[in-house]
Amino acid sequence: MTLRSEIFEQPERIENLLASQRRNVEQVAAAIRRRGVEYVLLAARGTSDNAGRYANYLLGAMNGLPLALAAPSLFTYYKRPLYLKNALVIGVSQSGASPDIAATLEEGRRRGCLTLALTNDVRSPLANASELVLDIHAGREKAVAATKTYTAELMTIAMLSVALSGVEKRWRELGRVANWMGSALKQDDFISQAVERYRYADRAIVLGRGFNYATAFEWALKLKELAYVMAEPYSPADFAHGPIAMLESGFPVFAVAPKGKVFPSMQQMLLRLKKEQAADLVVISNDKRALALAQIPLMITDDIPEWLSPLASVLPAQLFAYHLTLAKGHNAEKPRAIHKITRTN
Amino acid sequence: MTLRSEIFEQPERIENLLASQRRNVEQVAAAIRRRGVEYVLLAARGTSDNAGRYANYLLGAMNGLPLALAAPSLFTYYKRPLYLKNALVIGVSQSGASPDIAATLEEGRRRGCLTLALTNDVRSPLANASELVLDIHAGREKAVAATKTYTAELMTIAMLSVALSGVEKRWRELGRVANWMGSALKQDDFISQAVERYRYADRAIVLGRGFNYATAFEWALKLKELAYVMAEPYSPADFAHGPIAMLESGFPVFAVAPKGKVFPSMQQMLLRLKKEQAADLVVISNDKRALALAQIPLMITDDIPEWLSPLASVLPAQLFAYHLTLAKGHNAEKPRAIHKITRTN
Repeated sequence: MTLRSEIFEQPERIENLLASQRRNVEQVAAAIRRRGVEYVLLAARGTSDNAGRYANYLLGAMNGLPLALAAPSLFTYYKRPLYLKNALVIGVSQSGASPDIAATLEEGRRRGCLTLALTNDVRSPLANASELVLDIHAGREKAVAATKTYTAELMTIAMLSVALSGVEKRWRELGRVANWMGSALKQDDFISQAVERYRYADRAIVLGRGFNYATAFEWALKLKELAYVMAEPYSPADFAHGPIAMLESGFPVFAVAPKGKVFPSMQQMLLRLKKEQAADLVVISNDKRALALAQIPLMITDDIPEWLSPLASVLPAQLFAYHLTLAKGHNAEKPRAIHKITRTN
Repeated sequence: MTLRSEIFEQPERIENLLASQRRNVEQVAAAIRRRGVEYVLLAARGTSDNAGRYANYLLGAMNGLPLALAAPSLFTYYKRPLYLKNALVIGVSQSGASPDIAATLEEGRRRGCLTLALTNDVRSPLANASELVLDIHAGREKAVAATKTYTAELMTIAMLSVALSGVEKRWRELGRVANWMGSALKQDDFISQAVERYRYADRAIVLGRGFNYATAFEWALKLKELAYVMAEPYSPADFAHGPIAMLESGFPVFAVAPKGKVFPSMQQMLLRLKKEQAADLVVISNDKRALALAQIPLMITDDIPEWLSPLASVLPAQLFAYHLTLAKGHNAEKPRAIHKITRTN
């Protein structure tokens, strides 16, 4: 039951992270401001890459900082030095052990860039390769599937964004995150029943946009690595440019659609999928209109601001993947073919 | 038979594009060099987004230019002005009609950036929003599924990269592309038979890396929008970080693995999938070791350099998706639920 207990640990870990790491995050933010950074290049894989997708939207929408998700093979295979003047190079990795992510930071350092590692192991090769380090402070993660390190990465990114913005009231909003997460976990019993409907589903589409584009990717990844469901994540805009053609009547579509600026575009796509494609919908939201469209509505707290909603919305998604894994008779602790630390070049 | 004839038109279109647009491309490259661009922000959707993935690797590996694939919703929904000093903002769109792509270029112009449109319609809203325009010169594309405009976008990107590099011998290599494409199309009969094996496949994984990461995405997109096969693209490194767990014995894995710097990592993953997962492999390559692993080997010319291989490797992929669509009894000219021009915000 390691995975389950790590899922339920998350509110407490997030509270500790905020209390213990704020000063370090503010020092890192000050170093970034001093350097006159023009944009961010971020390297990560798997779950950490999904945290990077959150950073893409958050640093863009809150801090006006453009972010590029790095193609690590440019550093490990093609080896052409990139022109990286005025870039901040960030590597995100729970273990800090994957050689391709460390290689990206090493190249950034060689090019004179400011470098920053987000990791759960501050003595890892990634941390050693980096000038600045942020400890995601999640405690040792034993389950193969990452859960508490994902939300710890999101929270660290949110703290960095707030520190860069210097807007004091956002720190108070961060102080409420653990409570919002606790509420989301209360649906555990409901979700354990609701997954029955998808016992024989082997495909699904997962939709999310803006800050919750990351949540769609993370939900899909958990469905793949734990429940062996082929779940592909999309923004509704990318989905409309072609892939929507493959939907048959009754196709399972999972959506993350909390209130906020991108809500109208999510709602429009959900209405279209319901009416024209007769899709079977699971919806995570705090908006009644979206929840009313769903076969399985999964609620998050009403008053959570859009930019912090990914920290709560991923919890029903994690529980959904966990319970579906059990319903399908698979082992949630030992997914086949993967290990806790994956080393890629 | 519009789709089929547009697939077969491609070598001739590429030849005309090279002959007619070189001067314009060199002028655009000169304007980019004059401006002291530090990195590229590229906005696109669907097939054009896949061409953007080629630009990500090509401009990085050949020109040392970092590239960020833009999140258009940052411009259309969140509306926080991005700090875009010294960025080149590129929009890629066949029709030039999608509002989100034009909005990204308009924001770039407001921020004082150099802007560049790649489009098949030089009178489109996208072209009007842009300071610089490159005509991909593919002729009107009538089929809903994009084929000749994809290779025309790749070729335009390759020409721009060569013009930026100033290396004259690369222009001669570009002069050989149409022949390499012609050879790849000769496998049409073989592919029309080979697809029978996948008549009842409704899921597939598509692997590619480096320059051919784009090819994997484009193959997967054609399989989804034409043959309604849920095909998800990955680099072998991202695939190893979790999704590999979902493979069952006999799962269809399609791979693009031509000779070049990333070949060893593709070969290693194919060997692992064959031995440990008993995957069913379709492989596009010019390396005998990779082809020997495949149930269905699809060849491209032996002497094509890695950086230009995506222009040839996508042709067997297009033919494969086209013939599989027919074998499944679907209409390749009118995919359900999508139209030629998709307007998203």
